[in-house]
Amino acid sequence: MKKGPFQLVIVRHGESVWNKENRFTGWKDVDLSPKGIVEAQKAGKSLSELHLQFDLAFTSCLTRAIKTLNYILDEMHLNWLPVMKDWRLNERHYGGLTGLDKAETAAKHGEAQVKIWRRSFDTPPPQIEKNHPDHPVNDPRYKNVPKDLLPSGESLKDTAARFMPMWNEVISKEILNGKKVLIVAHGNSLRALIQHLENLSPEQIMEVNMPTGIPLMYTLDENLKVLEKQFVGDEAAVKAAMDTVASQGKKK
Amino acid sequence: MKKGPFQLVIVRHGESVWNKENRFTGWKDVDLSPKGIVEAQKAGKSLSELHLQFDLAFTSCLTRAIKTLNYILDEMHLNWLPVMKDWRLNERHYGGLTGLDKAETAAKHGEAQVKIWRRSFDTPPPQIEKNHPDHPVNDPRYKNVPKDLLPSGESLKDTAARFMPMWNEVISKEILNGKKVLIVAHGNSLRALIQHLENLSPEQIMEVNMPTGIPLMYTLDENLKVLEKQFVGDEAAVKAAMDTVASQGKKK
Repeated sequence: MKKGPFQLVIVRHGESVWNKENRFTGWKDVDLSPKGIVEAQKAGKSLSELHLQFDLAFTSCLTRAIKTLNYILDEMHLNWLPVMKDWRLNERHYGGLTGLDKAETAAKHGEAQVKIWRRSFDTPPPQIEKNHPDHPVNDPRYKNVPKDLLPSGESLKDTAARFMPMWNEVISKEILNGKKVLIVAHGNSLRALIQHLENLSPEQIMEVNMPTGIPLMYTLDENLKVLEKQFVGDEAAVKAAMDTVASQGKKK
Repeated sequence: MKKGPFQLVIVRHGESVWNKENRFTGWKDVDLSPKGIVEAQKAGKSLSELHLQFDLAFTSCLTRAIKTLNYILDEMHLNWLPVMKDWRLNERHYGGLTGLDKAETAAKHGEAQVKIWRRSFDTPPPQIEKNHPDHPVNDPRYKNVPKDLLPSGESLKDTAARFMPMWNEVISKEILNGKKVLIVAHGNSLRALIQHLENLSPEQIMEVNMPTGIPLMYTLDENLKVLEKQFVGDEAAVKAAMDTVASQGKKK
């Protein structure tokens, strides 16, 4: 085990085609939008300008995160970096809400129920059956994952519960070994990580919304407690990212 | 161990900026040319049209191969595929010839010597010192490779010698386990593989030149002997690939 402090950078994937349409995406394998590609390249440029080095990258099994990572690595001339793609970094699985936009969801399930789903830490969406085409048991990319671990629809609490073993058994060990790690993932899998790192309550983490494509750099001590955190980007991007986080806090 | 037959697809990266300029590239990390990007995307489309599935991909630590693989995976909607990047799939290391074009090499070393280098299976190029910027000991991407394994300049025989353990210990085991493998690599690391699979003499393999961006699909038996091979692409591309191979045979 190496002595700290340790460096960890996390990035939420650039805008996807469905982010733009404001539909519940989850595990649906939607591609980056043209704006999402630009965001990813910009993230790579910002990290390059800091002359950050990395030893290892982790991402999900979803195209929008993997391609964001690829664009970042290309901008940094780090295409050779070892990359681990793991389903436990996937977005929260939205079950029966997958593919619906806000209006469709309200029409189908009522405004009151939608509010509960949006604000609740531990209320899962409607579950889908194993024979549903959106169920991960029917997707070859998950064929090596034990079937009983694959979700039918998750709350943020469920997402955190499947992410934490990945953190504890794999990623945190690499960091403690002195490896400089880059994680490119999703709004909710990153919330699970941020909640853990910053020791936030369920209410607090529900108010945190990672901006897309703005890298967040943590400096961690030997117990992986946060010593420092900062968004990486040009002044305007960092200010916008911090304003986003602040205005979400005010909505409470 | 699974029963055969087994599927293996190999692809030489698309044209790089230096292929176009006809310079010795080797381990120099030169990017794809615009034509190379199109070749890579076309390779992905051709493989898609065959509805081939893959379980695992291997590539080198060099950008032009990694990006060719990325373009292929994107066209096939297989971005999630596990990818192993390994230095032993790198191109032949051209030592002191790295970066020279044909005319510069002839001026520096004489036409006769250039002919020997181009035609010989086991004559290495001039070796570079460990303090030379092109020596892999000075490149962070190889920092986990034992320094005495990293080349200072290789013949094709040397390239084959460092590739074969990768084949024997890693790739062939995955294939025998029933994994459908895709390899995206370089003219000479693929020559090493082709020589082994097709049991070619040094003279024969020196006449084989893989076309860029045209996938070659092997069907292998339980001893990994070749049952069948075919180029994958539209009719014109396949014909051009086969003509290339044939006309090289005639030059002998």
